Parts: sequence; C-alpha cells; structure tokens
Amino acid sequence: MKSVFAVLLFTAVSFAQTEQPRVVRYSPKPNDLKYTYSASYTPVARLKSGDILETNTVDCFGNAIKKPGDTLSMAPGDNPLTGPFYIEGAEPGDTLAVKILDIQVDGNQGIGALAPGFGAINATNYTPMINPPIPEKIWFYPIDHTTNTATFQALDSKFTVKIPLHPFFGCIGVAPAGGEARSSVVPEAFGGNMDSPEASVGNTVYFPVNTPGAMLFLGDGHAAMGDGEVAGTAIEVPLRSRVQVRVIKGKKINWPRFENDDYIMTVGAYRPVDDALRIAFTELVGWIHNDYGLSELDAYELLSKVAEIHLNEMVDPNYVVVAKINKKFLPALIVKSSK
Amino acid sequence: MKSVFAVLLFTAVSFAQTEQPRVVRYSPKPNDLKYTYSASYTPVARLKSGDILETNTVDCFGNAIKKPGDTLSMAPGDNPLTGPFYIEGAEPGDTLAVKILDIQVDGNQGIGALAPGFGAINATNYTPMINPPIPEKIWFYPIDHTTNTATFQALDSKFTVKIPLHPFFGCIGVAPAGGEARSSVVPEAFGGNMDSPEASVGNTVYFPVNTPGAMLFLGDGHAAMGDGEVAGTAIEVPLRSRVQVRVIKGKKINWPRFENDDYIMTVGAYRPVDDALRIAFTELVGWIHNDYGLSELDAYELLSKVAEIHLNEMVDPNYVVVAKINKKFLPALIVKSSK
Amino acid sequence: MKSVFAVLLFTAVSFAQTEQPRVVRYSPKPNDLKYTYSASYTPVARLKSGDILETNTVDCFGNAIKKPGDTLSMAPGDNPLTGPFYIEGAEPGDTLAVKILDIQVDGNQGIGALAPGFGAINATNYTPMINPPIPEKIWFYPIDHTTNTATFQALDSKFTVKIPLHPFFGCIGVAPAGGEARSSVVPEAFGGNMDSPEASVGNTVYFPVNTPGAMLFLGDGHAAMGDGEVAGTAIEVPLRSRVQVRVIKGKKINWPRFENDDYIMTVGAYRPVDDALRIAFTELVGWIHNDYGLSELDAYELLSKVAEIHLNEMVDPNYVVVAKINKKFLPALIVKSSK
Amino acid sequence: MKSVFAVLLFTAVSFAQTEQPRVVRYSPKPNDLKYTYSASYTPVARLKSGDILETNTVDCFGNAIKKPGDTLSMAPGDNPLTGPFYIEGAEPGDTLAVKILDIQVDGNQGIGALAPGFGAINATNYTPMINPPIPEKIWFYPIDHTTNTATFQALDSKFTVKIPLHPFFGCIGVAPAGGEARSSVVPEAFGGNMDSPEASVGNTVYFPVNTPGAMLFLGDGHAAMGDGEVAGTAIEVPLRSRVQVRVIKGKKINWPRFENDDYIMTVGAYRPVDDALRIAFTELVGWIHNDYGLSELDAYELLSKVAEIHLNEMVDPNYVVVAKINKKFLPALIVKSSK
Repeated sequence: MKSVFAVLLFTAVSFAQTEQPRVVRYSPKPNDLKYTYSASYTPVARLKSGDILETNTVDCFGNAIKKPGDTLSMAPGDNPLTGPFYIEGAEPGDTLAVKILDIQVDGNQGIGALAPGFGAINATNYTPMINPPIPEKIWFYPIDHTTNTATFQALDSKFTVKIPLHPFFGCIGVAPAGGEARSSVVPEAFGGNMDSPEASVGNTVYFPVNTPGAMLFLGDGHAAMGDGEVAGTAIEVPLRSRVQVRVIKGKKINWPRFENDDYIMTVGAYRPVDDALRIAFTELVGWIHNDYGLSELDAYELLSKVAEIHLNEMVDPNYVVVAKINKKFLPALIVKSSK
Repeated sequence: MKSVFAVLLFTAVSFAQTEQPRVVRYSPKPNDLKYTYSASYTPVARLKSGDILETNTVDCFGNAIKKPGDTLSMAPGDNPLTGPFYIEGAEPGDTLAVKILDIQVDGNQGIGALAPGFGAINATNYTPMINPPIPEKIWFYPIDHTTNTATFQALDSKFTVKIPLHPFFGCIGVAPAGGEARSSVVPEAFGGNMDSPEASVGNTVYFPVNTPGAMLFLGDGHAAMGDGEVAGTAIEVPLRSRVQVRVIKGKKINWPRFENDDYIMTVGAYRPVDDALRIAFTELVGWIHNDYGLSELDAYELLSKVAEIHLNEMVDPNYVVVAKINKKFLPALIVKSSK
Repeated sequence: MKSVFAVLLFTAVSFAQTEQPRVVRYSPKPNDLKYTYSASYTPVARLKSGDILETNTVDCFGNAIKKPGDTLSMAPGDNPLTGPFYIEGAEPGDTLAVKILDIQVDGNQGIGALAPGFGAINATNYTPMINPPIPEKIWFYPIDHTTNTATFQALDSKFTVKIPLHPFFGCIGVAPAGGEARSSVVPEAFGGNMDSPEASVGNTVYFPVNTPGAMLFLGDGHAAMGDGEVAGTAIEVPLRSRVQVRVIKGKKINWPRFENDDYIMTVGAYRPVDDALRIAFTELVGWIHNDYGLSELDAYELLSKVAEIHLNEMVDPNYVVVAKINKKFLPALIVKSSK
Repeated sequence: MKSVFAVLLFTAVSFAQTEQPRVVRYSPKPNDLKYTYSASYTPVARLKSGDILETNTVDCFGNAIKKPGDTLSMAPGDNPLTGPFYIEGAEPGDTLAVKILDIQVDGNQGIGALAPGFGAINATNYTPMINPPIPEKIWFYPIDHTTNTATFQALDSKFTVKIPLHPFFGCIGVAPAGGEARSSVVPEAFGGNMDSPEASVGNTVYFPVNTPGAMLFLGDGHAAMGDGEVAGTAIEVPLRSRVQVRVIKGKKINWPRFENDDYIMTVGAYRPVDDALRIAFTELVGWIHNDYGLSELDAYELLSKVAEIHLNEMVDPNYVVVAKINKKFLPALIVKSSK
C-alpha cells in the first residue's frame, strides 16, 4: 500500500517543512570533474533528505573556450560533471526529488558551436552521411546580467540580437541502473544530458534511485536554448546554483519526471523521436491514472485534447521529449492512506 | 530576379489592399464532399487572387456520430473535404497564400474517439503489433459558445473539465505534385491533414502550387487539440469559416509554411518525427537565409538558441512538425527590387 | 467461410491448368507511359484471369541516358510505367496473383547514377541535411548476354568487375485504395516501386485488389541490385517479360506478398525501416496463422528462430522490407472446405 | 604511414603463423559472471596476441530455466558474460581481432521465450504501447548432436520441426570507450549484444580497443536464430568455444567488423534501423576506400549493385545491421609499405 508521503512526492508542497534546511556547499576543482554518470566514484559530498546544496558547474567545454581562435579540441572532454552527491537513505526503488531553487550564469560570456558530427540537420556520428562535413564554427555570446540577456553576433554579417536568459542544467542525473556507467553526453532513464529547459528554477526533477545514495550529478549549464537544440549547442555557460534534495521512500518511477505548481511532466529519451514520445506519454498516462484516478483510456483521450509536448533536443545520442499536462485539467490528487 | 511581390508574400502586409475584396460563398452538399486531394475534380467554385471565401466544413466523421451508441463505422469516410476551389492565375511554381480570417465551431457538440489502429501509443496500421488491440471508444464534448469552451466528460468516472476552444482546420491543402491524388488522412508537401493548430485565425498558410488553379481543399475542423493529437483525434467539429486567398506569382516553395505578425513557421511531414523535423528546419534555415539575409550557418546557430518546435501530430500516416522563429530575432526582411 | 480456391491462391500449384492460356501482347509507345499508379487511366489492354501477358518496359530514366555526358535532367520523368492492364473480374476484396514467367534485359547497357537528394547515406529530400550535396554521377554497365553479366567500371580508377544478372521489376503494382494516385517512385500497400529482387522469374506476387480490374502497372527494370539499393539505383535497364495473371476471388490481403515453391514472403513498406519490418512480420504471422494453422504466438516464436529478412531498399520515399519463411519449417497448408 | 601489419589485419591470412599458439583455458564459476561490459573488473585471465582461448559460456538466462513451469524471473540476470580477458599489448587506438575457431552447443536443450516488453512486433520498454501486454511463454528445444538440429515444438498444437544448428555468440565485445560500462543486453560501438550470426566459426571479429587490455567478454550463446531475432530470443544455449586473439597495433576502427575468406562486413548498432544501416554502410565505404583503393563514390555505387545486408536483430535496446560485400567484387587489397 502506498503511503501519504509517496503520494505527496508529486506535489509542490512536498518540500514544505518547518525546520530550516541544512545548506551544504561544494565547489569542484578541475580534477574533481566527472565524465560519466556512475556509482563507482567516491562521492564529493553527502546530503541528507531536505538539505540544500549550493554548488557550481563548468560549461560543457570545461570552460576552455574563451576567445576567437580557440577550437573545440581544447576542451578537456564533453560536459564535465559536478558530483556525485550521495543522498543518505536513498535506496533502489525510491525516488529522488531535486527542487531547483536558484540558477545563475557564472560568467560574462556564453559559447555556441557547430561541431561536425553533431546536430539535427547535419550528418552525425549516429546518422552518418558521405556528404562533405560542415565546418567547425564558434560563436561568442556576451552576457548582460542587468538585462538578463545574451547577444547573438552573426559570424558572416553584422547582425546582432539580444536573447533573454533562461538558465538551466543541460545535465542532471543519477547513477544508472544495472551497474552501467554512461557518458555525460547521453540522456536516458537515469536523466543525464536531457538538455531540458524544464531543469530550471521553480521546477522539481524526480529521478529513479538505482543505487544506494542515488549519486546526483550536475553540469552543462545553458543560459538559453531553442527547442531541439538543433545545431548541437545552447548558449553554453558555467552556473552557480542552489537545489534542495529529498528522498521519497518506496515510490518507484521508471523515467525522470518534472513538476511545478502548474504542470506534471514526463521524460522520454531514446531514438527515434517517435519512441521518446511513446515513453513520455505512456509514463504520463500512468502518472495520471495512478495519482489522479482517471482510467488509462480517459487519460489518453484527455491528453489528446490538452497535452503539451516539448522536444528538448534531437542532437545527443538519444533524443529527449517532455510530455506535459496542466494540472487545471486534472482531477484532485488522490491522497492514499498509509494504513 | 525576384520581384517585390515575391518578397512581400511572406509579410503580414501582403494582404493589405485598397479595394474591397469580393466575397464568394459556398456550402457543400453531402455528395459534394471529397476524400482525396486531387486535381482531377471539377472545382466547386472559382476564386480570384484577393477574394474572400466563406464556406463550411463537416467534421472528420461526416457529421455522422451524434449520440452515445453511435459507432465509427457510421462515418461515410474519414475527413470529408470541402472543395476544391480553383484559384485563377495560380500556376505550378507559384505560391498560394491563404489568410484565415474567421473560424467558428458550427454546432454544439464535438467528438473524440479511440480507433484501434490509430494513435501514438497504441498499435497502428503502420506500426502494427501483435498485442491485443485497444477498444473503440467515443467521447462527446458539449460546446459552450458563451464561454468558448468544450467539456471533457470521463467515460469511466464522473470527472469533467472545461477546455478552451482554439478552432482550426485539421485539413487544409492543395492538389499534390506529380499527378498524385492523396487520401484526406495524409499530410505531405501539399499540406493536407497537417492537424496544425497554426491553421487558425490570424495566420496565413502558404502552399506550393502544383497544378493550374492550385485546387484548395478544407476540412477536419478541430475545436481544440493537444500537441501530438496523441490518441488520434482532436475535439472534432464542423466549422464555418472565412479565408482570403492570394496568388504569389513566381515564388516557389517546397513545403507548406505559416506566418503571422510575430512568427515565420515551416512544416515538415513524414516519418519518423526525426525526418519531419529535418524537413522543417532545413526549410526554415533556407527561408531565413533567402529572405532575411543571414548566412545558412548563422541561421542554423541562431535557431539552436531561439527556435520553437510544435509537434502537431504523431498519429496520421505521416507525422507533422512545425519549426518556428519569432521575427524579433531576425534581421529586417530583404526587399529585393524587381528591376 | 473460405473456399478451396481462396486457400490455393497461396500455393505454387494455383497456376496449374489444363488448357493453354491465352497470350496478350502489348508494347507501349512513349506517350503511353504513365507516372502514377492510378485507376483513372484508360487501360492499355484487358486480360482475363489465367492470361499470359507479354510486354516490355523502358528503364527508370525513360531510356533517355545513353552515353557519357548525358545527365539525369534528360529523363522525361522517373520510373515510366507500362500499363495499366485491366484484369477482368477483379473486384475490391479480391487478390491479384501475378506469376513471373520470364524477364530478359532488353538492351546492351545498364545505367547507375548518384542523384543528389536520393540515397541511403547521403542527404535526401525526406532526410535533408545542410551539408554540401554529393555530385551527380552516372555509371554505364555493359551487358553481356552470353555470360549473363553486367560490368561495373569505376569512374575514378581503372577497376572493372563483372556482376551476375538477376533481372526483376523494380516497379510492379496496382491502383491504390481510397481513390489515391501515387507516384511511380513510391512503394506502399499497393506495391509500386518496391525494388524487390523477389519480383523475378519463378516467383508469384500477390496484390490486394482495390479497384475494379485491379489495374496492373510494370516498370523500372533492374538487371541486378544490391540489398538496400543504397546509392539510389540498381543496374537500370529496359525489360522484356512474360507474366501470368490470376484473380483470386474473395481472398483479401492488406499488403503485397510473394511466394514460390520454397518460401512465403510478405512486404512492409514505410518509414522508418522499423515500421516496414513490423508490417511485414505482422502480415507473416497472420499468413502462417490463417493458412498453416500455428497459433499466432507459436508462429512468432518460430519466426524468431528461422525467419529471413530482405531489406530491399532504403532510398525511396518509403522503405521496403520482405520477411520470409521457408515452407520446410511450416505445417501442411490448411485446405479448408468451401462448405 | 600505415604498416603492412595494419593492412594485413583485414585479411584471412593475418592469423597464419609458424609457431604453435599457446592455449589458455578458463571456465567461469557462477560468481565470476559479469553483467556489464566494463574496464573496471579484474580480468579473469590474461592473453597474449596469438593465444588461443578455450572457454565456455552459460545461456542468456544463466542456465536457470530447465523445465516447463520455470519462469523468466528465475534467471539471475540477462546475458551473464564470461570474462573479461585482458589482451596484453592492446592499447586504445589498436584493433583487437578475435578469430572464432570452434563453437559447440554445451547441453541437450535450448530455450526460447516471449517476454512482455521485448520483441520486434510487440510493445517494449523503449517502444511502449498502452495495448494489453502479450503473455510470457517459454519453448524448449531438444538438441540432437548427431544431426546438428534443434526441434521446435509448438505450445498450442502438436506441430514440431527440426532446425539446423548454427551456433554463435550473441554477446561478444570489449570494454566501451569513454569510461562507460554498458549492460550485457546492449550492442553498440564496443560490440556487445550484437546477436550477429556472423560471430561464428570461420569468421574473425574486429573491435576497436578502447582501454588497455581491450577486455574481451563472451556470452549469450545461440544454437540458431532467425534474422531480426524478432520475438526476442534465439535458441538460447550454453556454449563451449575456442577463439584466437590478435592485437593489431596502430590500426583504429570505429565500429566492429567481421571478415572471412569471402566477405568484409561492417556493423552498425543503434536506432532506428535506418541509422544502424547508415553507420554500417559509411563504415563499409570507408573500408573499401582505405584498404581496396576505390574512390568513395565508386565504392558507394558498387555497393548499390552488390552489397548484402543482414539485419541481425531489432529487439535489443539498439538494433544491429551488418553490411557486406563479397571480396570477388573488390580490387586487390592494397599492401601499403611500412616505410
């Protein structure tokens, strides 16, 4: 039988508490950065359920690209990760909730790049073509912290335009199931390189806990990103952030989820986009059915009328779709007795 | 050399004019409805560039489903189409612009349905599975014209919820290229069953003209629809509508496009979603490059930062993606001299 | 209840007969060639069930490319079709069987070509990329009728090699269902541009009959082709051929099928290959279940152990998979009484 | 400059040698079995280039399913792996060649199973559907070592049929690149669960070496399998085997390859099948271009005429395509001087 806590996990109030949460601060040194999601690392810090973590991340190029003339080969690796953070009490079969309290761009410049072999409408490593490759190109985006904008500057003309900032974690995830260690460029059931703008302030991310301590990783800060991240990068930046973690005991999910006051949201990550979408929507039908009490077919029908789809990216080894429904279209949350 | 008119096609002002446009009214009888997009029909009316067409469409079931107990087999066919309308002066190589001036739900009830073999997360005719099929189910949506809402009524519980109306044409298209005739359930380069909520008031749709007169068809009215139309239907309704047509001579496009004061938008329609997205984004890069003057790689990079993606449907034989960019992120439109 | 004839359709003996079949000869003039599969044409000849048709087809370029320096733009259209042939007595819901008795390469030279926008590992119209296009290239293959070989001659070196001939129809199909007319470059449920090497001597092809007379079309001769037709063409040739047609009354199939003494084979045609394969295998499970009496799950399991897959092409607008099982692995054919 | 040895790697003679190779024998205990491809394990044995390994593998269910009534839940995990074997001298950037000398089915019974969530034409974990699931089912296949056959026995009828044995490793692979550890059910660039019937006697498999010692794993024996492994299993058996390993220094490949006296073969592994095929064919074009001297476009054209495609499986998390060309269609191998 499910407990009240298991149900409340998926509500915005689940982080409400009377005591002041403990704050844990951690800042990585270059050698502390990781390039896989894995349970095999020594945790960089240990958190209790309810703790607030203040930490920072480098950009997807390890902060190595700084000025015109720099090249992608200067990056020490893709998507260096801060972590892992061990969350005490998290065991396989539980859910880890991470509420994002604050994200700030940690610098005055963002980077965009075309990398041959990466992108939605150019030949890639997993959709290879014999056409000639596109060239490597790098764009620099000055960040204006007073207006909260970044400026696109065309390389082949004088055109510039300001883009509003919406900072989020491109990478947020836990150690995978089955003893796997996965590259920091991959999104899958453990989260990872989801490139989800939903991983931003005001939202809570839920992950399946696959290993003791869950092992949380963060990285790949984005100052702003278009849907699909089609050319392969967002405005890539280092971040400073505050997140609060909570362990929901005995609540098992299969794929990451997001939630805020207005929406419940599910993640699907694989190829082709068709299958990512199927994962996200079967998960969303299940969530509505289990926690809001509609029958599966009623939920399916309702989603056909009011669902929202956010195609986060179609450039990483797996593609990411977020399926959403506004809570105003749902019945009241079922509060199941724990007895 | 491209003329001023060819360029102005893609601006909201292209429909501005000093004279009062002629209004053509047409209402189909049941036997006048069509089930393919084809140039082989006798046109039901002839329009001049600039004319306003007032017409109406039946719902995707031919208005045959009316009350509980009715079944999908009662429909005379899927997506009966009003038309074709012959637009004088339209020749292959031109573009047909259709500005949607008004759409009203023509009735007090909408229909939603689960049809075995149709849907994003159930086995279908083109993604068949040996799993047992899902059952046929029909939902009825009362329409409230004063509040502009439809009401979802669960079949397996007492739950009801109001859904705001956003009426649009599920089907809008022209005769295909190459002498093809295509089913009214298919979207492709000629438009058709795009299920695009973008085909609504305030937007202009552009089609490649493939045959003399273009041959415009309309149908499959939707009172509201979720992204992806995942269970296979929107809130299906008859519509009354007013649209204005215009022929842009000598401007050739490959796939349908949408435009309004704020956005330029391109359509890709095929399978898997990955390829629909690739079509939409290569078209959008081309549009920006040709009409706004950014280099192709600058356009690609900019889209990676500010593009929007709308996955219209993943249930028809082909899937439809709309790629968008807000004009505020673009340089000024290039006005090329015709001399 | 199914008749004996309906079952015998799917056996090699179904063409056995005691009387001498009538032979109908037809040779198209250039203006007689068609570029769509459609029921709207006047038939070029009428056949009775059991008749033998002797006819010929031009190559996919309309025989227009003859010597180095010629270009693809010289072709009058893609895949000009011979036909349609009206088969008397064929009605929607029947099956048309076409037994291929003889195919000969009708000339001394075959053509291969790279066309930008067409191919499995270069950017195409439906998988577009912003990479620079590949160049157009044409290869000429001398045909040696004594050794039954064609000779590949490299363009960029002196290398040549002989390739054994296996002539077949790249295009063979009937008028589509639902009033559609489909381009001669498309394969789908009506057959069409399947590029199936199975459409060769010794095999029988079955088509669903969608319109009165079925309306058979033939074209796109191939002297030899690799699996997948990956660069977009086979060794393209005109053909002379003899086929025998037979109408199987009251036997309904959904997708084309092949059969010979040793194999039953089903066709799936769509995108991605995953879905083409799903169509072919659900059809094959159904065939085994209905005509050979295994339960669906036993058939599925058996196919997992002994099925063969032939990926015919991954270059046309839809991709074609043929799924096969050797009859030696099947129970005896069920001969159902017609009473 | 490439050495003679680097080139000879890809010829059948590369394993010829004058001295008698050393034979290393290893048999795993249950606790020695692994469930990921990873460099993090202590090797179970160390081999030198040229050594012959004699070892055995358990079946994909850990030999746990023995008689009717047993269930899939009795398996300790999927695809238990024998290994890893450390090959001395193998460094990142080298290629590991594994020549398969002998494979014997190690038992008198094979297993086939339907597992809900796994299969090409039923709903799966990565192509989920809301249709009702298919049931779990297990088939037992008696093995006859004198006739080299296994017997299929229908569960729902009395039908039985003998199937010729073709034993091979479903799993053969090395530690992945980038510090990843991958599940034993996944195929990718490191090989793994390729389910390639090409991993059988007479063939040599080549792997990219990603970590010191390469770390070879073997498992998932198959007594026979249909193309596509469509229902999710082959005839699953334990194996006894002999393989010979060789390190090719300084020869870098991106994806696994196979070779025998007659064929060169490349592997692509991802989703959808379209992309797996693109990987395999771009690799094959590259192999022909680099080692046989045809230009890339000549190679592409030639493959369009004579290539063979083997769709190994469409049921694992990634799908596997093998692209092949018979060496009789290729120019002579280029023997590059090492000076």
